[in-house]
Amino acid sequence: MEFRNLDQHPAFSQLKARVKLPDMRTLLDARRVEEYACSMGHEMSFNYAATPMTDATLELLQELAQQAGVLEQYRAVLDGAIMNASENRMVLHHLTRGQCGAPVAHQGADLGEFYRHERERISTFSQRVHSGEVRSSAGHAFKYLCQIGIGGSDLGPRALYLALEQEARRCKEQKMEAEFISNVDPDDAARVLGRLDLARTLFILVSKSGTTQETLTNATLVREALKEAGLSPAQHMVVVTAQGSPLAQDTQLLERFYIDDFVGGRFSSTSAVGGVLLTLCFGAQVFTQLLEGAHQQDKLALQESIRANPALLDALIGVYLRNCLGYSATAVLPYSQGLQRFPAHLQQLDMESNGKQVNRSGQTLDYATGPVIFGEPGTNGQHSFYQLLHQGTEIIPVQFVGFACSQSDADRVIDGSTSQQKLNANLAAQIVAFAKGKDDADLNNSFNGERPSCLIHAPRLTPHCLGALLAHYENKVMFQGFLWNLNSFDQPGVQLGKLLTGQVLRGAPEDGALRAYASRLGIDSAS
Amino acid sequence: MEFRNLDQHPAFSQLKARVKLPDMRTLLDARRVEEYACSMGHEMSFNYAATPMTDATLELLQELAQQAGVLEQYRAVLDGAIMNASENRMVLHHLTRGQCGAPVAHQGADLGEFYRHERERISTFSQRVHSGEVRSSAGHAFKYLCQIGIGGSDLGPRALYLALEQEARRCKEQKMEAEFISNVDPDDAARVLGRLDLARTLFILVSKSGTTQETLTNATLVREALKEAGLSPAQHMVVVTAQGSPLAQDTQLLERFYIDDFVGGRFSSTSAVGGVLLTLCFGAQVFTQLLEGAHQQDKLALQESIRANPALLDALIGVYLRNCLGYSATAVLPYSQGLQRFPAHLQQLDMESNGKQVNRSGQTLDYATGPVIFGEPGTNGQHSFYQLLHQGTEIIPVQFVGFACSQSDADRVIDGSTSQQKLNANLAAQIVAFAKGKDDADLNNSFNGERPSCLIHAPRLTPHCLGALLAHYENKVMFQGFLWNLNSFDQPGVQLGKLLTGQVLRGAPEDGALRAYASRLGIDSAS
Repeated sequence: MEFRNLDQHPAFSQLKARVKLPDMRTLLDARRVEEYACSMGHEMSFNYAATPMTDATLELLQELAQQAGVLEQYRAVLDGAIMNASENRMVLHHLTRGQCGAPVAHQGADLGEFYRHERERISTFSQRVHSGEVRSSAGHAFKYLCQIGIGGSDLGPRALYLALEQEARRCKEQKMEAEFISNVDPDDAARVLGRLDLARTLFILVSKSGTTQETLTNATLVREALKEAGLSPAQHMVVVTAQGSPLAQDTQLLERFYIDDFVGGRFSSTSAVGGVLLTLCFGAQVFTQLLEGAHQQDKLALQESIRANPALLDALIGVYLRNCLGYSATAVLPYSQGLQRFPAHLQQLDMESNGKQVNRSGQTLDYATGPVIFGEPGTNGQHSFYQLLHQGTEIIPVQFVGFACSQSDADRVIDGSTSQQKLNANLAAQIVAFAKGKDDADLNNSFNGERPSCLIHAPRLTPHCLGALLAHYENKVMFQGFLWNLNSFDQPGVQLGKLLTGQVLRGAPEDGALRAYASRLGIDSAS
Repeated sequence: MEFRNLDQHPAFSQLKARVKLPDMRTLLDARRVEEYACSMGHEMSFNYAATPMTDATLELLQELAQQAGVLEQYRAVLDGAIMNASENRMVLHHLTRGQCGAPVAHQGADLGEFYRHERERISTFSQRVHSGEVRSSAGHAFKYLCQIGIGGSDLGPRALYLALEQEARRCKEQKMEAEFISNVDPDDAARVLGRLDLARTLFILVSKSGTTQETLTNATLVREALKEAGLSPAQHMVVVTAQGSPLAQDTQLLERFYIDDFVGGRFSSTSAVGGVLLTLCFGAQVFTQLLEGAHQQDKLALQESIRANPALLDALIGVYLRNCLGYSATAVLPYSQGLQRFPAHLQQLDMESNGKQVNRSGQTLDYATGPVIFGEPGTNGQHSFYQLLHQGTEIIPVQFVGFACSQSDADRVIDGSTSQQKLNANLAAQIVAFAKGKDDADLNNSFNGERPSCLIHAPRLTPHCLGALLAHYENKVMFQGFLWNLNSFDQPGVQLGKLLTGQVLRGAPEDGALRAYASRLGIDSAS
């Protein structure tokens, strides 16, 4: 496989040469909303009518996808090629939810089988917890869960848990309630431990390497709190880690579940990293539905035609907005309170994967890569930062997500409409307001329009739909990494901070400024 | 007062002409950390050693501040001039925490006295709730609060509540626990109502205009839930609104507290909008300390010398980064879990205030204004999006916040250091890593450095310190609005969405695309 930079593809040069924004005010009509839509299955759809696409641009984007060989690279990922070259690793998060490519073996083991086996072990263990067979050291059935993890061991699982909580309540599927401890700030653990009934709480300690400073520190704080409460830590904790990690040797645990080095933290929600939490909270069936939704998108992402491949299409439109139009940020705005932390997960997924300036051959890139990702649920964001999105001096493309139905059934007609209707009327209105704007003689009340957005919509935020959303964005980010010719699967940018932190904690920072900052923050280094 | 655009000031032209980034690798040393710091009082400090400032640049920024007349404009705000011209309103949030300027009267009333009077009424009412004199309709003392509000009635009060919760617990000052309902998505109210013990919950309904669709809708959902629980809504709800609003006429309430049109939503945390919640939760003394901290910064913001005026200096550095160096986003990264939602508050404060492209005379600006603001607490963010901050293709300036001590006392030495020491070692390390970078023959592991950050630090996140932080950023945003010559106090960009939403809900959208989107989201418009 030959990797070339984005600006080496003829289609990209043609796209850059031909940039012309279509006039959304006249172009965006009901027919375009119908036509510029890509099915995601299960009545879910990716709608890009309000992006500056034309049929000619889409044809060039199709050519760009072919010239960059993005599907060839995706198939290599699925078949177990070393696509995370800097770390000499395969990239196998797709395999955690189903087999799209050839069987992948490592040290004699079939890894698809390994992930399935772990799911079965999780399911069996969960049943034993739910039945009360596995009990706390105080003899109580476990009612609460607390995941201790940071980054990918926190953001994805937390976003998914919050997204399923109301749905599970409506379907009477919620079996346990979850809390999360992530920050090394001791106030995080103090706040969560102060709320939990420790005698009924099972902790899930998640660290792939088994060496994450924040997570190990918080695990120690938790064990001390359990002891102080007269409980036995070993009977209140399970671990999710790699088989070779130090944590895998820990004997003070109820159970160990395994992941491996081929599933990166930010892509690990469908592995045991998310699976233990979600299966314990909602049961194996809900987690299986989520995996099926994700697997379906993984299969769809193999489609050659970009108009039938929503993740690839979304990726290409994003690259067009970033590299042909120069937009430097993207807002993620789900009109669903359940998705309140989904933007924070996408922020990691996207910015940690593609916030890079070096290509896969170690050369500096001279075009823009990953944008800043931020967002809050609608309608909350409307009362916060949308002012800038409508009338700021820079254009920020938007990713909207919406659902016809709410998750809970608690809705009422108030002033002629339900809350859900109000929510979605706002969403539809925002798309059109951004795209079409409004002229006013008073420029203060004038809206330029031409602010692009796309919309993923579905009947309801079910586990299946949530899995589809998750995989859609994972695959979009992966395809963009291929287009930008960078390695989306490593994170070398976190190393320097770790190095300098270690110097401060060992009391021996070389740098004078580092000593001065540490001193101002209450850490006096050894002389 | 004469208002001129940023690019009409000679000092700005000189700044733009002379842009030269200092070499941070050699420049940033212990002495610079000592010298490039501005006291905020109470051992709190704004440190800008890691920004690309030189003495020459600071002199030009001082001239710019004078040429733009920012202090003159601030004094006009304090003295009650109509500084929100598009809405023909004074701008009086500073007066909610103390008198910095001349007395301000409106319709014969002294408004400073009005805000003080409301604070006293809040304090008296809170004492009656805490003593059990005011009880729920089921005869119970109130133990829980739930604020119903959106935008400025939610983000600021919520951020402040979360920031004080651990501190109040340590000081044994927490009197009630709070929840929040903001989104019109019915899942938000369903989730919160499902967690609350309604018979012991007091609701605070907050809408200045008394017409906010989301808030009125949620108030109705709450009242229905109270009725279904056999409770009397009128005995479970207070309101915060303007005296002339429809809500002020509502008789189904325990009590009414008043604000006025001169305190904008995003600047209203120190008015009754935040005051009722915070006084009920933590007592009048804590809220008073917060106001004193804010008032002290308001006074400091009157200093002529920018080196003694942290809010003005922060504003000027921000304008330099935005308009001379072209950086389009700013990350807000508090190393304190208590400040977990402070970035979301600042996101509204900044982006809604300064995300504008028209000046105060109604003319289009041809320079960049408000940046995108986003952030998460450290160290969490380090495991999420810092990759892009270190190695992305665009430079994102950072605002760090840190404290020598944690709020809770629950900390332990683990592996030779406490959690708080680990937290702050990470913070100090990040500042230096961003500024100085690191060369490596493998460019993948190389860090360019020259990524600017500033740091606000204090001994501990007390109520006084939190008030100071809040006012610092309010004043920074105000000063930047003056420099950009725009009205930071209106929000015309929210109107078009409201207009189109109304069309959908009335079943009569004119626009075909709007009908098509609404239909996809489950709303079938009347034919």
